[in-house]
Amino acid sequence: MTITPPALSVFEALESEVRSYCRGWPAVFDRAQGSHMYDEDGHTYLDFFAGAGSLNYGHNNPVLKRALIDYIERDGVTHGLDMSTTAKRAFLESFQNHILRPRDLPYKVMFPGPTGTNAVEAALKLARKVKGREAIVSFTNAFHGMSLGSLAVTGNAFKRAGAGIPLVHGTPMPFDNYFDGTIPDFLWFERLLEDQGSGLNRPAAVIVETVQGEGGINVARPEWLRALAELCERQDMLLIVDDIQMGCGRTGAFFSFEEAGITPDIVTVSKSISGYGMPMSLALFKPELDIWEPGEHNGTFRGNNPAFVTAAATLDTYWADGQMEKQTLARGEQVELALRAICEEQSGTQFRGRGLVWGLEFDDKPRATAVCRRAFELGLLLETSGPESEVVKLLPALTISPDDLDEGLRTLARAVRETA
Amino acid sequence: MTITPPALSVFEALESEVRSYCRGWPAVFDRAQGSHMYDEDGHTYLDFFAGAGSLNYGHNNPVLKRALIDYIERDGVTHGLDMSTTAKRAFLESFQNHILRPRDLPYKVMFPGPTGTNAVEAALKLARKVKGREAIVSFTNAFHGMSLGSLAVTGNAFKRAGAGIPLVHGTPMPFDNYFDGTIPDFLWFERLLEDQGSGLNRPAAVIVETVQGEGGINVARPEWLRALAELCERQDMLLIVDDIQMGCGRTGAFFSFEEAGITPDIVTVSKSISGYGMPMSLALFKPELDIWEPGEHNGTFRGNNPAFVTAAATLDTYWADGQMEKQTLARGEQVELALRAICEEQSGTQFRGRGLVWGLEFDDKPRATAVCRRAFELGLLLETSGPESEVVKLLPALTISPDDLDEGLRTLARAVRETA
Amino acid sequence: MTITPPALSVFEALESEVRSYCRGWPAVFDRAQGSHMYDEDGHTYLDFFAGAGSLNYGHNNPVLKRALIDYIERDGVTHGLDMSTTAKRAFLESFQNHILRPRDLPYKVMFPGPTGTNAVEAALKLARKVKGREAIVSFTNAFHGMSLGSLAVTGNAFKRAGAGIPLVHGTPMPFDNYFDGTIPDFLWFERLLEDQGSGLNRPAAVIVETVQGEGGINVARPEWLRALAELCERQDMLLIVDDIQMGCGRTGAFFSFEEAGITPDIVTVSKSISGYGMPMSLALFKPELDIWEPGEHNGTFRGNNPAFVTAAATLDTYWADGQMEKQTLARGEQVELALRAICEEQSGTQFRGRGLVWGLEFDDKPRATAVCRRAFELGLLLETSGPESEVVKLLPALTISPDDLDEGLRTLARAVRETA
Amino acid sequence: MTITPPALSVFEALESEVRSYCRGWPAVFDRAQGSHMYDEDGHTYLDFFAGAGSLNYGHNNPVLKRALIDYIERDGVTHGLDMSTTAKRAFLESFQNHILRPRDLPYKVMFPGPTGTNAVEAALKLARKVKGREAIVSFTNAFHGMSLGSLAVTGNAFKRAGAGIPLVHGTPMPFDNYFDGTIPDFLWFERLLEDQGSGLNRPAAVIVETVQGEGGINVARPEWLRALAELCERQDMLLIVDDIQMGCGRTGAFFSFEEAGITPDIVTVSKSISGYGMPMSLALFKPELDIWEPGEHNGTFRGNNPAFVTAAATLDTYWADGQMEKQTLARGEQVELALRAICEEQSGTQFRGRGLVWGLEFDDKPRATAVCRRAFELGLLLETSGPESEVVKLLPALTISPDDLDEGLRTLARAVRETA
Repeated sequence: MTITPPALSVFEALESEVRSYCRGWPAVFDRAQGSHMYDEDGHTYLDFFAGAGSLNYGHNNPVLKRALIDYIERDGVTHGLDMSTTAKRAFLESFQNHILRPRDLPYKVMFPGPTGTNAVEAALKLARKVKGREAIVSFTNAFHGMSLGSLAVTGNAFKRAGAGIPLVHGTPMPFDNYFDGTIPDFLWFERLLEDQGSGLNRPAAVIVETVQGEGGINVARPEWLRALAELCERQDMLLIVDDIQMGCGRTGAFFSFEEAGITPDIVTVSKSISGYGMPMSLALFKPELDIWEPGEHNGTFRGNNPAFVTAAATLDTYWADGQMEKQTLARGEQVELALRAICEEQSGTQFRGRGLVWGLEFDDKPRATAVCRRAFELGLLLETSGPESEVVKLLPALTISPDDLDEGLRTLARAVRETA
Repeated sequence: MTITPPALSVFEALESEVRSYCRGWPAVFDRAQGSHMYDEDGHTYLDFFAGAGSLNYGHNNPVLKRALIDYIERDGVTHGLDMSTTAKRAFLESFQNHILRPRDLPYKVMFPGPTGTNAVEAALKLARKVKGREAIVSFTNAFHGMSLGSLAVTGNAFKRAGAGIPLVHGTPMPFDNYFDGTIPDFLWFERLLEDQGSGLNRPAAVIVETVQGEGGINVARPEWLRALAELCERQDMLLIVDDIQMGCGRTGAFFSFEEAGITPDIVTVSKSISGYGMPMSLALFKPELDIWEPGEHNGTFRGNNPAFVTAAATLDTYWADGQMEKQTLARGEQVELALRAICEEQSGTQFRGRGLVWGLEFDDKPRATAVCRRAFELGLLLETSGPESEVVKLLPALTISPDDLDEGLRTLARAVRETA
Repeated sequence: MTITPPALSVFEALESEVRSYCRGWPAVFDRAQGSHMYDEDGHTYLDFFAGAGSLNYGHNNPVLKRALIDYIERDGVTHGLDMSTTAKRAFLESFQNHILRPRDLPYKVMFPGPTGTNAVEAALKLARKVKGREAIVSFTNAFHGMSLGSLAVTGNAFKRAGAGIPLVHGTPMPFDNYFDGTIPDFLWFERLLEDQGSGLNRPAAVIVETVQGEGGINVARPEWLRALAELCERQDMLLIVDDIQMGCGRTGAFFSFEEAGITPDIVTVSKSISGYGMPMSLALFKPELDIWEPGEHNGTFRGNNPAFVTAAATLDTYWADGQMEKQTLARGEQVELALRAICEEQSGTQFRGRGLVWGLEFDDKPRATAVCRRAFELGLLLETSGPESEVVKLLPALTISPDDLDEGLRTLARAVRETA
Repeated sequence: MTITPPALSVFEALESEVRSYCRGWPAVFDRAQGSHMYDEDGHTYLDFFAGAGSLNYGHNNPVLKRALIDYIERDGVTHGLDMSTTAKRAFLESFQNHILRPRDLPYKVMFPGPTGTNAVEAALKLARKVKGREAIVSFTNAFHGMSLGSLAVTGNAFKRAGAGIPLVHGTPMPFDNYFDGTIPDFLWFERLLEDQGSGLNRPAAVIVETVQGEGGINVARPEWLRALAELCERQDMLLIVDDIQMGCGRTGAFFSFEEAGITPDIVTVSKSISGYGMPMSLALFKPELDIWEPGEHNGTFRGNNPAFVTAAATLDTYWADGQMEKQTLARGEQVELALRAICEEQSGTQFRGRGLVWGLEFDDKPRATAVCRRAFELGLLLETSGPESEVVKLLPALTISPDDLDEGLRTLARAVRETA
C-alpha cells in the first residue's frame, strides 16, 4: 500500500501543537467498522489499538449502533446531568444483573463525569474524605489521567512536568516485578508503613492498575494483587483499582481484578464501558464508603444518556453469559503464540500480556517506534507504550475475528523483521 | 398537574448518594424535544434549565439530529483520540470560518478532553508553563470544575471541602460589584500586585467568567472586563475567560466577552459547543502560547467525533449570520420585562442577567428553592444558584419560542406568588 | 569623622554573599556599651538600631552584665534543653509576677527555641492543631521570619522567592490604613469569611504585628486591633500577635497590644526578652490551647539559661513598676517633635510611630538609603525598612539618655538635609 | 541515692505541656561542671547526654568560660546581626586555619541563625534555588528540625503530625542497613531516578546524617556514604550532610563525613560549634553555590558574638592538632568494650556506634525507657532515641575522663541488669 501524505493544512494551521496520534498516523480517517478504519483516500487500516482500549467491541458495533440510532430517533433524553432517566435505569439494571450480582460485588455506582480522569478524581476525593488523610500511594509507571489530582499519581515525568506546579501528596512504590523478582514484594512499602520514623505520610489509599497499559504492559501477578489487598486491609488504607483500560473484558473477565479474587474498595471504569467509544465513566465503591453529600462532586456531562444506552446493550449482548471471557482468552492465546515466535526469531525482544492486552518490548528502545511506523505503512495501527516508548502495545478489539487477528500478527512480524 | 412519586428503587439502591438533580426533580425522564422534557408517566416539563447551559439549541434539535444520525449511519469514526478525521476537519473549518475569522480571533484550538473541567485544567497548565509561575487568581463565587486543578480556583466552600486536601495556588479577588459599587474596581488586586511586600504570590494568570452562572448570575460589566484585561497585560498575567457556560451564544454573541471588546489570552469552551448535549470541550489560545509538546496533555475522549459533527452543524446553521445573536437579545428583553414585573410585585426580590441567562434573587434565601420546587409541580424545570442557593436561575434554550418563554415566565411568576 | 575602609578580607573571602548589614556599615565593630558601638579603628557610633529591637536595654547593660557574669562564674547551667533549672524557675516567677499577673494575662509559657521564627513556627503549628485547619491569614507587609512556616506568612516578595518552593496556606489581607482610610476596615476579609462561595480556605488563625517594623513602621490603630480581635472571635479564628519586635516595652507598655485592650490567643516574644541580645524566645498562649503532647515540638537551644538569667534581671529591674513605660513614652515624644520638624522642613517626607519605634518615609524612595549612608558617615547607625526600603527606621534603646537621643535626632536631620 | 521529688509548681503551673526532658528527669538543676550536673537539692548527676550533643567539651568548660567572661567583661559586642566584628573575624580565621584549610575544604561560611533548624532551612533553600527544583530526598528515621522546612525532611510521624499541614516536597529513602544488608544499596533510589516513569519528582538535593542520633544511632558505613555522594554527582543532586549532632568531633574527626572521604556540597553545623552550649549554627557550602543575594535569608540572632568567642576558643584549644580525635576514638573503644560486655550478658540487646556516640537497643522496646529511668535514680543522665524510643543513647562529653566514663558505663550495666 502506498500512502500519499494527506493535506493536513487546517489541522496544522489551527490545531494546537499538543496533538500527537495524528503525527504517527498521517492520514485523515473517515469511516470505521469493526476492526478496520478507512481514511479519506480509500486506504484501509487494521486496528490493533482500539481507541486506546475504548473500543473493545470494535468500531461502530452494529448491535450498539442499532440501539443508539433507535434511541436518538425516538428523542430519548441526550443530556441528563444526574436526573433519573429511563436510559440510566436500564443501564443500572443491566449493570446490576449482569455484572455486580453474578460476581457478588456490593458496589454503589457513581457517574463522576464522562472520562476516566473524572472517575479517578472522584475516587481520590472519596478516599481522602473517608480516611481524613491526604497521601495516596501509586506505583512506578502508573497512568491515571491528566487533571491535577490524577496526574499527581501518574508516573510519567514528561506529563507530570506539564502540570506547572509541584505535584505532591503522592508517593510511588515499586510495581510488581519492578526488580525482576529479586526483592520481596512490598518489602519497602510495608516497612515504611510500620516504621513510625519512616517519614512516609500515612496514605488514605493505594491506587493500582492490574496491568499498566501506558506504563509498558506491566502485568501484576494475582498473588501480588492479593498481597496488596491484604496489606491495604491490614494497614487501614483503601484499595483503588483503576480498571479504566483493563476493565470491560480486556483481560478476559469483566473486571481485570477478578482473576486475583480480590474486592477493591473503589474501582474506576471508563473507556469501553459505553462500548461505542462515547465518553462515559463510573466510580464504584463499597456502600459503607458512600458518604458523599448530594452534589459534593458534580459535572455537566455525568449523564451522557446515549452512552448509557450503548453500555446497557454491551452488557445485555456480551456479558449475559461467559462467552465473551472465553473468546478473549482464546484470542489471547493466539497472540501469545505469535509473539513467542517473533521473540524466538528476533533477539533483544520480550513479550508479556494477559487476555487481549500484550506488549512487545525492544532492548533497542527506538525500534518500537520504528516498528509502529512500518506497521502503519503496512496498514496496521499500533502504538507504543512504556516510559521510553520501548514497547509495542497490542490492543485489538475483543470482537476481532481470528483471521483479522492473524493478519495483524503477521504484519507485525513483518514490521519487526523489516526494522531489524 | 399531579405528580405521582415514581418508583426510584434502582436509583436509590444502586446510585451513589452524591446524585442531586434527581432529588429536586423526582421524575424519571424519558424523552425530550426542543424546550420540553417528558417523563415516563407522561408528564411534560418546560425546560428553563437547558442542561445547565449545554442545550442552547434545545433538546434533540432536529437539524443536529439529522446530521448525527447520518454520521452514525454511515459509520463515521466515533472515537478518534487526536487522530485527524474528516469530521474534525469539518468542525475546524466551520469554527474558523464562522467564529474565529469573522471576529478576528487568532486562536489555536486544543481538544483537551470531553468536558469543561478538562479545558480548565489544560488552560491552567498552559498558563503556568508559559509564565513559569504557580499562582492563579480567580474570583469570589467562581465555578470552574471539580477536578483538583479546577476546584482550586472554584469558590464554593462545600465543593472545595470535597477535595480532601488543602487547595492551594489560588487566590480569590472580588468579582465585579462584590461591594455594590462602593469600592473602586481592582483596588485590592492591583495594590497587591504593585506592593513588593504584599505577600501575594505573583500570578501566572487570572481566570474569570463574564457572568457567574453557578455563583448566582453575577454579571460583570464590560468596562470591568476591559479594566481586568488591561490589568493583566500591564502586570504580565494571562487572562483566561472561562466561557464554558456563557459561551456559544448564551449572552447573545458567540463568545460572552465580545461585548466588552477584549481578546483573552486563553478561552475555555464546552457545554453547548457540540450543541446536542454531547461531551466536548475546547481550549483556545493565542498562537504564541502554543508551546505544548506533542502529547504533553492528552485524554481518551478528546476526539468525540459525533460531537464534532453536531458542533459543525450548529455553526453552519446558527452562526453563519447574526440572526442567532439578535434573537437571543430579543428573547432576553422578554425575560427582563417579566422579571421586572415580578420584582415590582414581590418585595425582597432582585433580578439580573444578560442575553438568555437571568437570575431572580430572594432576600429570604430558602424561598428560591421553594420557588423551584413549586415550579416543578407546575411543570417547569428551574434550578437555583448562588453560594446559598438564593437565586432562581433562568437558562432557557436559545431556540425557545416566544410563546414557550412566555408560558414559563408566567409559571415562574405564579410559583413566586405561591411561595410568598 | 573620617572612616578608613577596614580590611574586610576574611569576611569577603570566607563569609557567604548573603551577609547584608556589614555592607551598609563597612566597619569592624569591637565593643559596645549602652547606646554606643565602637569599631576596631576607634570610631564611635551612636546606635539608633538596637540590634533590630533586640537591645531595648542598650548594649551590655551593666545590671544584666553583672547578673550574667555572676551566673557564669558560679557555673550555673548553661545549656538545659527543657530541663527544670533554677534559672528557668527564676525567670518564670519574674515573668508571672511582673508581667502576666499584673496584666491579668492567663498565658501558659512555651520555650520554642532561641529565636523569633521558632516561636512563630510553634504558634502556627499550635493554631493549626487546635483548629484542625491549614490556612493562616497574615497582613500586607508582614514579617514573621525566614523558616518555611514563618516565611509563608511574610509579605516580602524577595524573601519569599528565597524559599525555592511555592509558599502556600497563607493569604494576605490589608493591614490597617493600607488604603489610607478610604476603605472600611476588614470589609474584604469579613466578606470573604461570610461568603460561602468566596474561595477563601477557612483560616485557623490570623497573625498580626501591632506595628510592622520591617514592613515600614506601619502602626495599627487600637480600634483596628480591637475590631480584628472581635472578628477573630466571631469567626472562630485564633488571634496571634507577633510581638517579637514590638514587645518588651518597645511601644511603651510591655506588650504592644496592651494599649488596645485586647488579649490575643497566642503571643510570640523574642528579640529583647533576654535583654542582653542573647537568643531566646517565648510562645504564650491561653491555657485551653495548651494541647501539646510532651516533646511534640522541641529544639536544642530551648533552654538558653544565661538568657533566662538576664531576662529575669530585666523584669526585676525595669518592669517591677511603671517607670519604664513612662520613660519610653516621654522619649517617644522627643522623637516625634524632631521628626515633625524634619518633615516640616523637608517636603516629600512623612513620619509615623509609637513609643520608641518611628519611621521617616521618603517619597523619593532611594533617598532613605542615602540618609542611612550619610548618617553612618556621621557616626549614627540607622537602617531602612519598608517594601522598597523607603523608610528610615528609628529604633533607639529604650534606655537611651535624652542627650544621646537629641544628638542622634540632630544627626538624622543633618543627614536628611545633606541628601536633599 | 534517694531522690526527693522537687517542688515543680511554677513549671507545672506556667510552662506548656510540651516540655519533655523535665518529665524523665524530675530534678531542678542548678549548676554544672565538666561531665557533672548538680540539682538544687545537692544531688550530683553524671551526664551521658551532653546537651543532646551540644556540650562536647563538657559543661562550662574552664578554657571557654575564661574566654567568655573576658569578652563580656570588656564589653565585646554581644548582638551583632551580620555586622563584621572582631569576634566574628577571630572565629572565621580559626575556622579557616584549624578546620577548613587542613582538610582542604573549600567552603563558604553562612551564619543562618542560632540553631540547627535555621541551618537546615538555609541549606534547603539554597539547594532549591541552585537547582530550580522543589523535591528533597531524606532518609528513614532522619531528624533535621522542627520548623516546617526541616520537619518536612524529618521521619518521625509524631513530630510530623505536629505540623498541622501536610508536609510535602520530601521523599524518604532507606538509610544504610535499613533492610539488614539484604537489599543492594540505593537500588530503589537509583531506579526511581533513572526511570522516566517512576513518579519521583526530581530532587534538588539529598540530606543525610552520617549517624542518625535521634533515629536510633544508625551508623552509615563509609562505603554507603561514598556511594551516595557518587549517586548525587551522577544524578545532578546536591548532597547535604547534616552534621549538627555528629559534627564538632563527636565521631572522632571534626566532621563526621571525613572518615568516608567525601566532600558534601552543603554541610550544616550547630550544637557543639560554640562549645559552651550557646546557640550558634553554620551552613557551609561550596563557593560556586553561593548565589545568595544580600539579605535573601536573614535572622535576628545570626551574630551571637559570645558564641563566636567560645567557638574560636574550642578550635584553638582542641583542634589545632589531632589529639582530640585520637582521644575520642580511644574513649569510644572503652564504650564499645563495655557495651559488648552488656550485650553478651543480656540477651535481646544490640549495640552500635562510632566515636563517642553509641546506642544500646532493646528488643523489648519499653525497657530502654526503664533503663534510663533507673539510671537517673542511680545518678546517671541518659536518654532514649529511635522511632519507638527503643535505644539507650550514650553521648558523653568528648572531654570526659576515663574514670568518669567507666563509672557511667558501670552504672548503665547495673541499670540494664536491674530492669531485666
